[in-house]
Amino acid sequence: MTNEESEALKKHHEWNGKIEVISRAPVTSREDLALAYTPGVADACMAIVENPEEAYRVTRKNNLVGVITNGSAVLGLGNIGPQAAMPVMEGKSILFKEFADVDAFPISIESTDVDEVVQTVKQIAGSFGAINLEDIAAPECFEIERRLIETLDIPVFHDDQHGTAIVVGAAVINALKLLKNKRIEEIKIVINGAGAAGIAIAKHLMILGAKNILLVDREGIIHSGYPSLNSEQKRMLEVTNIKDERGNLQEALVDAEVFVGVSAPNILSARDIEQMDENPIVFAMANPIPEIMPDVAKKAGVTVMGTGRSDFPNQINNVSAFPGIFKGALEAKATEIDENMRLAASYAIANLVEDEELSEEYIIPDPLDKRVVPAVAEAVKKAAINSGVVR
Amino acid sequence: MTNEESEALKKHHEWNGKIEVISRAPVTSREDLALAYTPGVADACMAIVENPEEAYRVTRKNNLVGVITNGSAVLGLGNIGPQAAMPVMEGKSILFKEFADVDAFPISIESTDVDEVVQTVKQIAGSFGAINLEDIAAPECFEIERRLIETLDIPVFHDDQHGTAIVVGAAVINALKLLKNKRIEEIKIVINGAGAAGIAIAKHLMILGAKNILLVDREGIIHSGYPSLNSEQKRMLEVTNIKDERGNLQEALVDAEVFVGVSAPNILSARDIEQMDENPIVFAMANPIPEIMPDVAKKAGVTVMGTGRSDFPNQINNVSAFPGIFKGALEAKATEIDENMRLAASYAIANLVEDEELSEEYIIPDPLDKRVVPAVAEAVKKAAINSGVVR
Repeated sequence: MTNEESEALKKHHEWNGKIEVISRAPVTSREDLALAYTPGVADACMAIVENPEEAYRVTRKNNLVGVITNGSAVLGLGNIGPQAAMPVMEGKSILFKEFADVDAFPISIESTDVDEVVQTVKQIAGSFGAINLEDIAAPECFEIERRLIETLDIPVFHDDQHGTAIVVGAAVINALKLLKNKRIEEIKIVINGAGAAGIAIAKHLMILGAKNILLVDREGIIHSGYPSLNSEQKRMLEVTNIKDERGNLQEALVDAEVFVGVSAPNILSARDIEQMDENPIVFAMANPIPEIMPDVAKKAGVTVMGTGRSDFPNQINNVSAFPGIFKGALEAKATEIDENMRLAASYAIANLVEDEELSEEYIIPDPLDKRVVPAVAEAVKKAAINSGVVR
Repeated sequence: MTNEESEALKKHHEWNGKIEVISRAPVTSREDLALAYTPGVADACMAIVENPEEAYRVTRKNNLVGVITNGSAVLGLGNIGPQAAMPVMEGKSILFKEFADVDAFPISIESTDVDEVVQTVKQIAGSFGAINLEDIAAPECFEIERRLIETLDIPVFHDDQHGTAIVVGAAVINALKLLKNKRIEEIKIVINGAGAAGIAIAKHLMILGAKNILLVDREGIIHSGYPSLNSEQKRMLEVTNIKDERGNLQEALVDAEVFVGVSAPNILSARDIEQMDENPIVFAMANPIPEIMPDVAKKAGVTVMGTGRSDFPNQINNVSAFPGIFKGALEAKATEIDENMRLAASYAIANLVEDEELSEEYIIPDPLDKRVVPAVAEAVKKAAINSGVVR
């Protein structure tokens, strides 16, 4: 940052914090106090003692998400620590409120140790109805999420993994609908970036039916001899890159139908696109500068192109997913957010684009489209009930 | 509770949670999102990386209190656990907002182990500007608070200890002002109840100048041979009951000028009062039924009488203290809430009653008196600056 304050920083100084905690109960008279606080509040406490599910009626647990980070992988900024991550967590919290009327509160944890993070979240989880893990570095994020899902009886969802994956899923569903001759089971997909988002996208596309996925990272295709594979990347080798292929990104792209980028600016050239199958589909989500700019990609023959940016068509933004997913999970009183619920969210987003509207420039709804949250919430709620993962 | 729902429980069901987290920043347009969330929010993050104090400008830390419990000593209900304690924590949080415009958020911790509670609070403390510990059982509460104060660079305040102590302090200051011939240094004070509140009241009255205090609990006067003394009660024996007296409550009361009860209903009789010095002062704060009812006490010769109840004169309620104390501490950017700040709060409350208004029926302002919070906040802020415990 230069000495000249950015407009965004100025605004942050004006807001002086982006969240605020207000009261839903009047507490101005003695009578109010006697109901909301002592002595009346004891009846609400005892109702929970008698039936723990009453916590969902007499406290805010029914609509409350903890947005929890340790600041180890914040935006593109890296490990800036828990304190410096808080503006993002407050931002996320207000998106929950504004998009889905879900209350969300940011918590930062002062540790990058898996055991400590898991232990801390377990200790405070009862304060919330669901947990949104945010901006936690890979590979720790995988184990942290896995262990918390195993232990806790409320939904735990690492948005950096699943949020983007769900929206990419919707985009792939509709891109293939547009290119009528292609089925997800038959196509080759190259995912560039084998961190939290890339791996989650691979898993999610496999749930959607994909069979042929290559994960690529800085040293090329992830394969059995890739230098310093982390545990999650090893796991992924059991289900992706079945032939244990080696090579760089360009070699990975040969005859691929789909490229998904969660990596770095401008790493994809027009020549790389030419390696791909005809009518290639490209989702280049590096922010703010994508792996390839849409005009370059289009010239090189890309048919369907999406980015993370709002100033180009087909914006892939996890704000299309997480508010509705948590709203649906909370409304269903879900105990987790399972595969079926995540799948339902992808289809709900995809289905908002009618067949006759579908075009290269419009394969997914705008993230600000007011229909998105209710559609996702409803689909996720139904899926939770169908899965039986509700209390 | 009977099958018939109480009015308070009905209201709690209607409210469906007493807190709500709202947005202070607009997030409806793309432009809004670009400022409050990505990419603009990165500037706020980087401002904190460059200068950690910026957290007080660009996040809500400047006005945010964590109300933290493990549910081990909730109201008069005992150890009902972290979940069942949450209606009280939400109630406390909304009192912070309504009385002092301080945002407060309730957190429950699933442990009664001192190390685990301390570790959890340390891990999440950065999320807040100050910590209000609430309804944690004695003697663990003393060590938890002490260790957190030592470790954290934000104020930590166990309200069950200090809140009541500060208001009792104000009441004692003004009761002695009314009875002009008595100085706090010379009087005998009996405190019945040697848990968190009783011990904190003893300490606070000593800071105010008291020299002669007897702590009494279920087995009588706390002395060196008292059965199963906890570590804090042992500590208190170094400064109270200097002569190591033994005896029951009645024997303790002989010639005492002040009785402070944080114990049980109706344990004080008219005959007990007669043991006391002339013009006795009685603060009987057991809730909802005090140690002695005001009419009985008055008939037995009590001059100044206070209770915890709003339907009798001189209500001793910690809502007179904590909202203003935290507001003042946050405004001063205090790093702790020290003795001087707690003392300043007592005097600020006491001084709101003008000498000409002072009477047996009016020694402290009503907890709903709108002047209380600003007066306490201002005094605490000044005291913090004078003490130099500010950042």
